[in-house]
Amino acid sequence: MCILAVVARGNAATRPLRPAKMGNLFLRSPFTLVECHFALGSLTIMTYCVAMRLHAGLVFLSDSRTNAGVDQVGTFRKMTVFENPGDRMMVLMTSGNLSISQSIRQIISERTAANGKNIWNATSLHEAAQVVGDAVRTVYQRDAKSLREFGIDFNVSLIFGGQIKGERCRLFQIYSAGNFIEAHDETTYFQIGEAKYGKPIIDRVITPATPLDEAAKCALISMDSTLRSNISVGLPLDMLIYEDDKLAVTRFVTIDEKNPYFQMIRNTWGQQLKRVFESIADPVWNAAPDASAHALSVTTIQSQPLRIAPQQTLVQQGGSDSSTC
Amino acid sequence: MCILAVVARGNAATRPLRPAKMGNLFLRSPFTLVECHFALGSLTIMTYCVAMRLHAGLVFLSDSRTNAGVDQVGTFRKMTVFENPGDRMMVLMTSGNLSISQSIRQIISERTAANGKNIWNATSLHEAAQVVGDAVRTVYQRDAKSLREFGIDFNVSLIFGGQIKGERCRLFQIYSAGNFIEAHDETTYFQIGEAKYGKPIIDRVITPATPLDEAAKCALISMDSTLRSNISVGLPLDMLIYEDDKLAVTRFVTIDEKNPYFQMIRNTWGQQLKRVFESIADPVWNAAPDASAHALSVTTIQSQPLRIAPQQTLVQQGGSDSSTC
Repeated sequence: MCILAVVARGNAATRPLRPAKMGNLFLRSPFTLVECHFALGSLTIMTYCVAMRLHAGLVFLSDSRTNAGVDQVGTFRKMTVFENPGDRMMVLMTSGNLSISQSIRQIISERTAANGKNIWNATSLHEAAQVVGDAVRTVYQRDAKSLREFGIDFNVSLIFGGQIKGERCRLFQIYSAGNFIEAHDETTYFQIGEAKYGKPIIDRVITPATPLDEAAKCALISMDSTLRSNISVGLPLDMLIYEDDKLAVTRFVTIDEKNPYFQMIRNTWGQQLKRVFESIADPVWNAAPDASAHALSVTTIQSQPLRIAPQQTLVQQGGSDSSTC
Repeated sequence: MCILAVVARGNAATRPLRPAKMGNLFLRSPFTLVECHFALGSLTIMTYCVAMRLHAGLVFLSDSRTNAGVDQVGTFRKMTVFENPGDRMMVLMTSGNLSISQSIRQIISERTAANGKNIWNATSLHEAAQVVGDAVRTVYQRDAKSLREFGIDFNVSLIFGGQIKGERCRLFQIYSAGNFIEAHDETTYFQIGEAKYGKPIIDRVITPATPLDEAAKCALISMDSTLRSNISVGLPLDMLIYEDDKLAVTRFVTIDEKNPYFQMIRNTWGQQLKRVFESIADPVWNAAPDASAHALSVTTIQSQPLRIAPQQTLVQQGGSDSSTC
């Protein structure tokens, strides 16, 4: 969105100064947005991350694009693994302001809360999510006021999931306020960042019973749709597959533009989609009432648009107008 | 988005009071948003509309859902046709605040601007778009201040296209400030409202050379993806096809849940998508370097996640903690 803001800058005469949205960050003018980010060196992660909680385990996928304008595009990894093999494996993915995300990660790695809990001794993933939420609040206390003085909201969104010995796999989405919700069978996945482009394919194919590799394939297709439609999301991708009860990273790969599988997905999915598209019949207009196959409209039911007919006086004004031209 | 705001209301303890976005309307609290809309009877069109400008003519598709909360969902048509057969055919689609949209439509239908121009005598679609933009500004002058006092931004977005005798087909997107941009071959389509879910399929299949009925099919698939992923978009749909140089509505249909063609699209597209999804190979992990087919990772290149190992002191705190439990 920051990129759009810069584009808008060049087109100030033709585009309105609409509020720019960047995660939770709303500013009235894209100028302010860009200036602020240049001034603060504050990169924003307009990311796409998705995580799925399935019977077989967990799937995590993140991109790595950050930007503070078209000439300040960078690569920062948004996925962090907290692993104590045999005891726990946890993954954190972040979207929003990069300085906030990095501070949260640092605090989680190092600190123990006042109640003695840290990410390594939490006895459940719910407790670990509280540790993450507390870290969000700590950074809020430290940075939010200063950011606000530069017109920047405290903007961060996190996905946190994994397994701690003795528990099943769990998956949480954590908000800027440090509160969180958990995924259940009815909500198999969480997305943060530019979520909408890649949502339809997940809605269509993923169920809790989907095998891990099939879910990985779906996540990559979802990412491909997002990459094609939104310039603020970019390669390389981090993909992590966690198999239930392994208590360590099962499979991990960083995917760049040369990755054979992702290349195949990008080519095949687009081609196949076009093929399916072409194989679906075009609509039949004004079909006979009994010939219902592919009838978009039938002769017996004529629907009418909300139609405004010209007022004769207004049309005539036109007549006299054009005659004087 | 208003619906989400209401959901958030019930979950105030678990969800943050994040800014609610409704088109150009940004409010800090969903409570304010909902109260405002109830108080003002101000329905908001969180719509999905798409229009395409092709060599063969124009395609317009709009949904008809409006809402001011889950218990105030209504149906209002968002597509209006301004037609003077043989002379001009113009279509207006609106997204945003319903009272603003309706006022704009009323003004366009009735008034002539100070310079003598109205929608019926404009000599080009660019001039007609200016008439629409002026109407937006007239409503802004009249309503924006009062709306602002209730915390509601002046929020409207329009697609306007058609043909006036002597010109080719043209298509415009008009903003809340009354300014506008025009579609060209590089930008074949405009969307307003909940645009992201349905964007990938358009990006993949539509070119300026796409025939009208094929483009209609694509618009319906794009709408289907949006309907499935977003509750704020709903049936019935208005679809209008305009064939170049007809200077009158070529084909129009209102599509409800019983429409055979749309039913077929909804079933077939989902099924075929799943079939294609299943036909694509699952990733191969840790493939041999020469067995590149579908290799997501190879044995010779082991990528590593950003991994944080436990600090022994922190883990031990856990040990003593759990031993006291």
